Amino acid sequence: MSAVDFGAFVAELATQSGQAILPFFRAHHATEDKSQGGVFDPVTEGDRAGENVMRHLIKRSFPAHGVLGEEFGSENTNAEYVWVLDPIDGTRAFISGIPVWGTLIGLMRDGVPVYGMMHQPFTQERYSGDGREARYEGPGGAKKLRTRQVGDLGGATLMTTSPTLFKGEEAQAYGRVESKVRLSRYGCDCYAYCMLAAGHVDLVIESGLKPYDIVALIPIVEGAGGVITSWDGGSAAGGGRIIAAASKTLHQAALELLAG
Amino acid sequence: MSAVDFGAFVAELATQSGQAILPFFRAHHATEDKSQGGVFDPVTEGDRAGENVMRHLIKRSFPAHGVLGEEFGSENTNAEYVWVLDPIDGTRAFISGIPVWGTLIGLMRDGVPVYGMMHQPFTQERYSGDGREARYEGPGGAKKLRTRQVGDLGGATLMTTSPTLFKGEEAQAYGRVESKVRLSRYGCDCYAYCMLAAGHVDLVIESGLKPYDIVALIPIVEGAGGVITSWDGGSAAGGGRIIAAASKTLHQAALELLAG
Repeated sequence: MSAVDFGAFVAELATQSGQAILPFFRAHHATEDKSQGGVFDPVTEGDRAGENVMRHLIKRSFPAHGVLGEEFGSENTNAEYVWVLDPIDGTRAFISGIPVWGTLIGLMRDGVPVYGMMHQPFTQERYSGDGREARYEGPGGAKKLRTRQVGDLGGATLMTTSPTLFKGEEAQAYGRVESKVRLSRYGCDCYAYCMLAAGHVDLVIESGLKPYDIVALIPIVEGAGGVITSWDGGSAAGGGRIIAAASKTLHQAALELLAG
Repeated sequence: MSAVDFGAFVAELATQSGQAILPFFRAHHATEDKSQGGVFDPVTEGDRAGENVMRHLIKRSFPAHGVLGEEFGSENTNAEYVWVLDPIDGTRAFISGIPVWGTLIGLMRDGVPVYGMMHQPFTQERYSGDGREARYEGPGGAKKLRTRQVGDLGGATLMTTSPTLFKGEEAQAYGRVESKVRLSRYGCDCYAYCMLAAGHVDLVIESGLKPYDIVALIPIVEGAGGVITSWDGGSAAGGGRIIAAASKTLHQAALELLAG
């Protein structure tokens, strides 16, 4: 069974999780702080509702598969296939009413991301990929996604969720890249990687990511012709410090600046 | 003729400007740098197309009215009624593919903002107000807008387009407020004020705004129960340093911190 066969199932996960999550978007619901150290990390009812419905569908259709989720932890992660779920990536955008959060649905086979989707149920956009191809469905129709083949930093647009992500040497490394690009923008979590896949943004640099923040996005970025790795050039699937670039030359130029 | 009578006309301005602008969103169009000093300030064909269609409609329906637009300057601004137009507020979001830009349509009578709309044609959202009421139309239906009556900074969410807007003392003033709030977010231009009107965000603080960046938003924020002024408590209609708050007490608390 190839990874491509999971497309219809992932579409159903997106539809059902979207129906579960959307009633909580812009509802005046309570938020809860699950962090220990005082950093504000909101969890919504929508987050839980979305992950519950996806876990239920996966268990019913693929009982042998593993699941790693943001809200309810990991199960059977030594299985050949492991689903990696983040029902609401961008919870801060979500609680601020801004539709740049998304539902991340990733599938790993033997530890390698093989299929991913970012679903934005409010705007009804779906960005998906399998590492060889990537596509968009939403307002304006369906199309293949291709990164913009920008080769030099001076012509590139850079995004990151927030410059306050970076501490100490990380902030200096990020600053070295930001000082060279044409334009930098803040505030988009998963949405930024999809804009890179669609050719609107050329670099995304982040730090402190969890696997469920990034696994689903890897086959989308790679399928659109981009490069996504850790800051030291290794696999992005483990999270941590991540760089995505529209082209190999841009990726190399940014990696060198990050290294100092 | 009361300002409320302009509602249907403004809706038509929004519909037609949206049709003019939307084809350029996420199109791989050329951008142009209109700034003198090296700051990247993109202008798109969509910006011009949107303002052209609105100016045409205004001249045809209200030839005695003045117009102040972002792209094509001012005409007859001593008239009783002056339209204040920004076809694409948030051009950096626009060129990055992010749907948090908006078309701003404001109406001033004798120098006072009396009606405003923010239209987001991709998400099909319209936020409008006349200073006494404010309303939303879009996905999920229509509703009245009300700010959240958050009274203290420790419970507030703060938004600004970018922390790099603020230089020197401004940055310190902004930092004093940011250090007190529950959550701060970057990256939304006009969309942030609409999220404040809708009760998702409690403070918006910006600097360096032009009148066309803010006039349309004033009747929306005030109609939803919020307060919007310059940093010294004066009228926001002139642009510059702007603060919008969900409640009077929050506005007062933030003004005091900005003053130092």
